[in-house]
Amino acid sequence: MKKFEEKTIATEKIFNGKVIKLQVDSVTLPDGNTSKRELIKHPGAVAIIALTDENNIVFVEQYRKALEKSILEIPAGKLEEGEAPEVTAKRELEEETGYTTEHMEMVTSFYTSPGFADELVYVYFTDQLQRLDDAVAGDEDEFVEVYELPLEEAERLMAEQRIHDAKTAYALLYLKNRRV
Amino acid sequence: MKKFEEKTIATEKIFNGKVIKLQVDSVTLPDGNTSKRELIKHPGAVAIIALTDENNIVFVEQYRKALEKSILEIPAGKLEEGEAPEVTAKRELEEETGYTTEHMEMVTSFYTSPGFADELVYVYFTDQLQRLDDAVAGDEDEFVEVYELPLEEAERLMAEQRIHDAKTAYALLYLKNRRV
Repeated sequence: MKKFEEKTIATEKIFNGKVIKLQVDSVTLPDGNTSKRELIKHPGAVAIIALTDENNIVFVEQYRKALEKSILEIPAGKLEEGEAPEVTAKRELEEETGYTTEHMEMVTSFYTSPGFADELVYVYFTDQLQRLDDAVAGDEDEFVEVYELPLEEAERLMAEQRIHDAKTAYALLYLKNRRV
Repeated sequence: MKKFEEKTIATEKIFNGKVIKLQVDSVTLPDGNTSKRELIKHPGAVAIIALTDENNIVFVEQYRKALEKSILEIPAGKLEEGEAPEVTAKRELEEETGYTTEHMEMVTSFYTSPGFADELVYVYFTDQLQRLDDAVAGDEDEFVEVYELPLEEAERLMAEQRIHDAKTAYALLYLKNRRV
């Protein structure tokens, strides 16, 4: 749908980083006036809602520089160029948690910050985990610790803001719904 | 919590926009190596899960330049400097939907994209809406259309990706849970 479409007049490319790009688009608004839009381009990401045989949720704790704190999140990672999301999802699960799976189902996808970024997160679910015999190396600048927690404990950590991001908040509600 | 803390060695400020700022931090990793983090600074935002007397959910349709499409989202908006989130929430509800309320409850807050941005969204709920007699002017570069839809219809729009953002995906699950 293109309702209230904002047509691009000009694009100013500001930054081309390892993860994100920044550009400022000059646009024509529906009323004919012009405005500027500050836009982040992101490769997209996957997130995996993973339940162990004991019905615990798999989390990774990671320091998030943008927040200046470490939080527990469901396993997630950026899409590599040309990589199918389900391939990324399995790879990130293996790298971050030491588990793998042959059975993942797509739950949904959503844009995290539609006001300024095109980051799209594909969310998967699995309750059929197998532990890998050997660890799979992940990104060399990523340090994570794995936790396996029941939903009630995770909800408590959410209230304490030790869990504090949108995809993990979504995951907890998803699992709560699934139980009913 | 500061586990796996990444200490800042240097900050390079790249962009200072109307909505977002971009900086690249050089950091020391837990293993002593160094890396760079591309970071977006955002003022934060509010979102309102609003139910009408008919038990319909209030949505606003808006063109999102970052996505190059219009989507239906729950009412939302950026925090103004020094403004309390609950004040922003009431203001955005009034500006975007023509409703007001004296009774909002805080649901939760979450970071939308912890990997690269500090945008924190405060989520509120109300089922006590009053229609305003007169429209309240909003941002002059914002064009929105209001919809009031039952949950089942919203879930269908989510499957069609006409609803396609994290806070609204969260809102639908929240309301589904609330019903049980």
